[in-house]
Amino acid sequence: MILHGYYRSTAAWRVRIALNLKGLKAEHRFHHLRRGEHQAADYTRLNPQGLLPALELDEAGAVLTQSLAICEYLDETQPDPPLLPREPLARARVRAFAQAIACDIHPVQNLKVLNRLGALGLDGDARNGWARDVIADGLAACEILVASGNGAFCFGEGPGLADLCLVPQLYNAKRFGVDLSAMPRLQLVEAACAELPAFQAAAPERQADAE
Amino acid sequence: MILHGYYRSTAAWRVRIALNLKGLKAEHRFHHLRRGEHQAADYTRLNPQGLLPALELDEAGAVLTQSLAICEYLDETQPDPPLLPREPLARARVRAFAQAIACDIHPVQNLKVLNRLGALGLDGDARNGWARDVIADGLAACEILVASGNGAFCFGEGPGLADLCLVPQLYNAKRFGVDLSAMPRLQLVEAACAELPAFQAAAPERQADAE
Repeated sequence: MILHGYYRSTAAWRVRIALNLKGLKAEHRFHHLRRGEHQAADYTRLNPQGLLPALELDEAGAVLTQSLAICEYLDETQPDPPLLPREPLARARVRAFAQAIACDIHPVQNLKVLNRLGALGLDGDARNGWARDVIADGLAACEILVASGNGAFCFGEGPGLADLCLVPQLYNAKRFGVDLSAMPRLQLVEAACAELPAFQAAAPERQADAE
Repeated sequence: MILHGYYRSTAAWRVRIALNLKGLKAEHRFHHLRRGEHQAADYTRLNPQGLLPALELDEAGAVLTQSLAICEYLDETQPDPPLLPREPLARARVRAFAQAIACDIHPVQNLKVLNRLGALGLDGDARNGWARDVIADGLAACEILVASGNGAFCFGEGPGLADLCLVPQLYNAKRFGVDLSAMPRLQLVEAACAELPAFQAAAPERQADAE
């Protein structure tokens, strides 16, 4: 398998964690987001969206896109250890948390959107303020979604789809100066994940393209 | 079941289609987005994100949020007719298409983001241009993702998760004046969906709160 990513792409980071949790190896190819390498023709041929990540399977011609779809594929084809619980209601809660990040936070604060804001004349402070507000609002809701849990991770005693979305989003939160003091449960989960080699090896600073 | 929605919320609309395809009945409660009713305390108690939709199950206290998580729950608990194919690679492709809309188009062009742009001083023309550009870019990629298919729907001969995301997004595309002429396959799928009672009954103009 070949994972197309970028060290600071939080969507690619989710898939790195998933692969590590499953014990799966992939070759990593990096595309520099700020230099626009993800918009080059040889990459958009693989992923028409021109977004990271994409996962090329060993099966000829099969390319998966969208981080959550990739994670679900990995979970269906390599079920152990699971990224989702078994029971439908529990699965729905984990997926909703993951989507609260992957739909409603990250795409509204990513580089693509910040570049659009810049093109409309917003300066760096305004763009950073935008990202900070979007992340702060979204994570405040995420804190409530897991507040009643008492496992070490978002939903229980093992890491899964929710946690692999949370950790990269918290990294972005800190980059943009979000105040996390009212989110103690998210911080506890982050600390639990930081103990795990699967999360450690997926961190941006551990990638070959880190700057 | 009680579905909390709004006639023009495209995320709630997805779930209406899914319920109809499955032949499931729900009571509908409407929350007026432009009047901010989704931010009222009695709703955010159900959905801390303050977003539509939410699905209250008959099981006491169980509330599902996030349209795609709700659709997957419905598919797992009521598998016939299926919203997703059976084979993991095919499932991943359908999910990726759905997420290309539900992660990368809709949350970047919805009312919440347009309101944020307004608060930064962007006028109506600039806000509408933003929505138009985001939708046009996203749907152009979606067209490529399904261009090689030759079934009546996005992925094959039956409607599913991809189609129930596409139809509401095309409605938004038209609202914002996106040129769809280079997306013939998406338009053919829309026409096929428009023939189906499950899609017809879910349309905004058929909802009790339509204006």
